[in-house]
Amino acid sequence: MIKLYGMTGSGNCWKPAALLRLLGQPFEWIETSTLAGETRKPEFLALNANGRVPLLQFDDGRLLAESNAMLCHFAEGSAYLPAPGYERSKVLEWLFFEQYSHEPYIATVRFWIHFLGKREAWRDRIAEASIRGRAALGVMEQRLAAHDFLAGDFSIADIALYAYTHVADEGDFDLTPFPAVRAWLARCEAQAGFVPMRLP
Amino acid sequence: MIKLYGMTGSGNCWKPAALLRLLGQPFEWIETSTLAGETRKPEFLALNANGRVPLLQFDDGRLLAESNAMLCHFAEGSAYLPAPGYERSKVLEWLFFEQYSHEPYIATVRFWIHFLGKREAWRDRIAEASIRGRAALGVMEQRLAAHDFLAGDFSIADIALYAYTHVADEGDFDLTPFPAVRAWLARCEAQAGFVPMRLP
Repeated sequence: MIKLYGMTGSGNCWKPAALLRLLGQPFEWIETSTLAGETRKPEFLALNANGRVPLLQFDDGRLLAESNAMLCHFAEGSAYLPAPGYERSKVLEWLFFEQYSHEPYIATVRFWIHFLGKREAWRDRIAEASIRGRAALGVMEQRLAAHDFLAGDFSIADIALYAYTHVADEGDFDLTPFPAVRAWLARCEAQAGFVPMRLP
Repeated sequence: MIKLYGMTGSGNCWKPAALLRLLGQPFEWIETSTLAGETRKPEFLALNANGRVPLLQFDDGRLLAESNAMLCHFAEGSAYLPAPGYERSKVLEWLFFEQYSHEPYIATVRFWIHFLGKREAWRDRIAEASIRGRAALGVMEQRLAAHDFLAGDFSIADIALYAYTHVADEGDFDLTPFPAVRAWLARCEAQAGFVPMRLP
């Protein structure tokens, strides 16, 4: 069975788990805590030199890192990833947006506040990163004000952006000014088989 | 003809230009300077709400952002992107690695030093980001010590990582401790049709 190394509460780790559940594909979850330093141990670094979860191991031992690469891998041929062409490329655009313009601010501020308890100690860097996080939410709001989903129908782009957007409050992000984002979160959760993040 | 909005000297903007040249596909380059604030003007934000280059516009007016999404778009069906399956997913793994673990440190430090002239003024943040940049180079070194390219044969993974690695010296990164990376840069440059970044 596929092994998925991940940390409960991590949006990046939740993404492939959520897609595998949507697809009805069983997997073994191996709890691996970055907070406890488990991704920096030699035995883990031998699997992923970049020292990060999620990490996927197939039955034959082959490995795959990067949550959004996993989403593309498993979504291939399913309704969650359009066939090659412009529509697929727009899904990919949002996946790269997520890792470059959204996650480094929204997920990171949440990590500092919710997991490390640095709300007061790191006030300045939190303020600076939060500006960029709100900018990312603004980009989503503009798209979602006129469309139900980020790229065509419900896709892995929505799964990727849902991950940290729906727990943005844990990073003190207020979604009140983003009504289209809030309505979209509800549309994601209404998908058949959608499992929220409180489970891994 | 395809329009490519980009800034000369930006690795992200060079990527799709390099691939289009490798494929022999003509395009129109529209110089768009982030330094001069051109990506924050209303007329540009109307094209890309995220306010970034590169930005691609097809003949029919449709738009595509995110350099690595462009690489996937144009490489589809070519030798630069394997067919769907594990090999393709490893290419995607490196593309996401580039945007999350490499570019935010190596490209950003280069930007601070080479374009903004902040080597002295931002000494502390440069030191902090440089540690992570060297870690990313270390991950590449480990892979390239045993393989000619990042994922299978020469692919868009190599184009994406070449972009900022080969100008890492402009961010004061010393590639001397990374001999496999240096040998790989030369292998990339030896590809037929490969155009270095000094042109856009």
